[in-house]
Amino acid sequence: MSELLTAPTLDEKLTAARTASIALAQASTAQKNAGLEAIAKAVEAGAERILPANELDLANGRENGMTQGLQDRLRLDESRLAGLAAATRDIVALPDPIGTVLRGSTLPNGLQLTQVRVPFGVVGAIYEARPNVTIDIAALALKSGNAVVLRGGSAAENTNRVLVELIQGALASVGLPADAVQTIDEFGREGATQLMQARGQVDVLIPRGSAQLIDTVVRESKVPVIETGAGVVHLFLDRTADADMASEIAVNSKVQRPSVCNALETLLVDTDAAERLLPPVLAALRDNGVTIHGDARTRELFPDAVPVTDDDWATEHMSLDLSVKVVDGLDEAIDHIRHYSTHHTESIVTNDMATANRFLAEVDSAVVMVNASTRFTDGGEFGFGAEVGISTQKLHARGPMGLPELTSTKWIVRGEGQVRG
Amino acid sequence: MSELLTAPTLDEKLTAARTASIALAQASTAQKNAGLEAIAKAVEAGAERILPANELDLANGRENGMTQGLQDRLRLDESRLAGLAAATRDIVALPDPIGTVLRGSTLPNGLQLTQVRVPFGVVGAIYEARPNVTIDIAALALKSGNAVVLRGGSAAENTNRVLVELIQGALASVGLPADAVQTIDEFGREGATQLMQARGQVDVLIPRGSAQLIDTVVRESKVPVIETGAGVVHLFLDRTADADMASEIAVNSKVQRPSVCNALETLLVDTDAAERLLPPVLAALRDNGVTIHGDARTRELFPDAVPVTDDDWATEHMSLDLSVKVVDGLDEAIDHIRHYSTHHTESIVTNDMATANRFLAEVDSAVVMVNASTRFTDGGEFGFGAEVGISTQKLHARGPMGLPELTSTKWIVRGEGQVRG
Repeated sequence: MSELLTAPTLDEKLTAARTASIALAQASTAQKNAGLEAIAKAVEAGAERILPANELDLANGRENGMTQGLQDRLRLDESRLAGLAAATRDIVALPDPIGTVLRGSTLPNGLQLTQVRVPFGVVGAIYEARPNVTIDIAALALKSGNAVVLRGGSAAENTNRVLVELIQGALASVGLPADAVQTIDEFGREGATQLMQARGQVDVLIPRGSAQLIDTVVRESKVPVIETGAGVVHLFLDRTADADMASEIAVNSKVQRPSVCNALETLLVDTDAAERLLPPVLAALRDNGVTIHGDARTRELFPDAVPVTDDDWATEHMSLDLSVKVVDGLDEAIDHIRHYSTHHTESIVTNDMATANRFLAEVDSAVVMVNASTRFTDGGEFGFGAEVGISTQKLHARGPMGLPELTSTKWIVRGEGQVRG
Repeated sequence: MSELLTAPTLDEKLTAARTASIALAQASTAQKNAGLEAIAKAVEAGAERILPANELDLANGRENGMTQGLQDRLRLDESRLAGLAAATRDIVALPDPIGTVLRGSTLPNGLQLTQVRVPFGVVGAIYEARPNVTIDIAALALKSGNAVVLRGGSAAENTNRVLVELIQGALASVGLPADAVQTIDEFGREGATQLMQARGQVDVLIPRGSAQLIDTVVRESKVPVIETGAGVVHLFLDRTADADMASEIAVNSKVQRPSVCNALETLLVDTDAAERLLPPVLAALRDNGVTIHGDARTRELFPDAVPVTDDDWATEHMSLDLSVKVVDGLDEAIDHIRHYSTHHTESIVTNDMATANRFLAEVDSAVVMVNASTRFTDGGEFGFGAEVGISTQKLHARGPMGLPELTSTKWIVRGEGQVRG
């Protein structure tokens, strides 16, 4: 990479991103796919530059007392780089959303109306210590015709700088504008603040990371934000639930990967079936290492449970801890969910059609399920290929976001001289 | 309307709106249509309550030096009430967006996935001195299953209070929750501020009114906003443009209703055709009362023009003033539009296919047109029936917003006990 004589300001970087976005919006699918392939190759071939930079970030992290979990998210190795290259190639195979016609009609006056998908333009991303997100977001943005400005956090600054340089080289090698992918890590916290104020320069801002990070971006940003978010996820066992299915779904939802947003946090059970369902279901969970935090009725039926607190109901534990409550039927279950849910994913196990339909209709979450593990709320599982994140807001996108969710639309009107009467 | 013993706080009103939204989300199309018909009847029958309240607001306005234009927007009379009732009945005839299936698939593991339209929940609206918006937004919100909280401004406070009381009575008369439509005008400016902070209580906020009002809401709101907006609208006359078509489209775009957002503000003409096109087109505009603000090359060809200023290019005149510039071809036209457009509507008059296609592809506005008047950017003209406003942002909705734009989506997953491997 050639170095500029004087380093660009953040404002200059945003202007360059806008210019790049104009070219990228007109790029063909073949060009964008060539860019993705070049990025995949650069990641594979770049280990000798990436891994020392990553080791430096890890060393700084250890010095600053970074947790093991964060260190693990920050760490790259040959196998993870191969995984990132493979994920980038997977995006080549996904359909290009740009140009898709969503609606259209010929008006009575002969005007021809078409609504087509177009890129947002410039997408901003704010995240923390996860260099894989640098590659993921850059690849998704490229395929959807967007330029992207990345603020990946100081903890991964060295890794991200090398990754972005490699991506820029890959873009340039296939004739795409290198400025389409940029990092603003060098501007520190002030840069993140400036990015959140850059209304008109940045079309949408996507925060990924801790609840605190997301909350800060949502509250401070003047740029439109897509909130990706926390999951206080519920499973309700109806009185008609099959005990084996209830156990399997509860264990899978809680245990398969407890640290992610679609993992189960609260189990609700109908009082009419509590005696039949709770002992086997909670035993299965306990045998998988789960600590049960139960209300009084739960603890009567399952003495191993520890007392649940009011705070537990609103907590995304992200650990092998589960809150459990006995409720007086579907109405109380829905009321509880309404009060404590983060509107991510809720599931019911039932064999009753009317109960299933009411649950699906009345629970207001991004994803509502019947007789399925909450772990299925995932772009990959939904068949979207890659995932930008899971939106818990209602504006623009809700639930797992794939490529179409990184686009806007444009109305095209074709006439022959029509004027309004 | 019965009065409460103690007036509710704004927080209590928002909670009541949320509760009402839960019932409204489950209401059938027939119930919602009955509510719309009851509102139409109440508006027709309520003139003797509405008009004196409106007269009081008008008297206050005159006392406070309200402009004639604002007074006209504020004024209701029998004929306008009849128009509002008719508009409400028009919404009965529109398809109910709720429950529409947008996408779906059966996954390899047998899970059945469906994405359906659901209401937002609670919609907030902030607007100024336009009591017709009170009826319009209430009717659109009702049809799309949303509760709505209205801040209509102190200048129309008396009118809006009566209108909302009539709407609430109409809702209650057909068994729908009266709290689904509420005003918070009694809380003054503080109420508007609190509404903008009510993240989690209000799902989306729609500002309608002056550029200053919209800008304030966009900058201060913590609730997701749909920006409706200003239109610095451009028309480009390509070198191949037919002179008669150019005149007709320019005059219609500028003159038919100069005070609205889709009216023309800047005319660009290719230098190769300036001599052929500008004299007749500008004469036609002048003969319709338009003041031409021209650049140097325009003034050479049309001496009646006054000099254009740099500010003019960025100004939404909302009057019979038009900025005119001679440009060196399509590239300069697109550059000028990129610099000054508010991304609302831009049109080209051309007979050249390649030029039309480039203009449609490269101009990044909510609506791009070829050989058509910019006045067609309108929900009614697009066949949407009613219009919530015209979005100039890229998130969620872009261009004229009808009923579907007042909805979110939900993923429904139906399984038979599937767990993730």
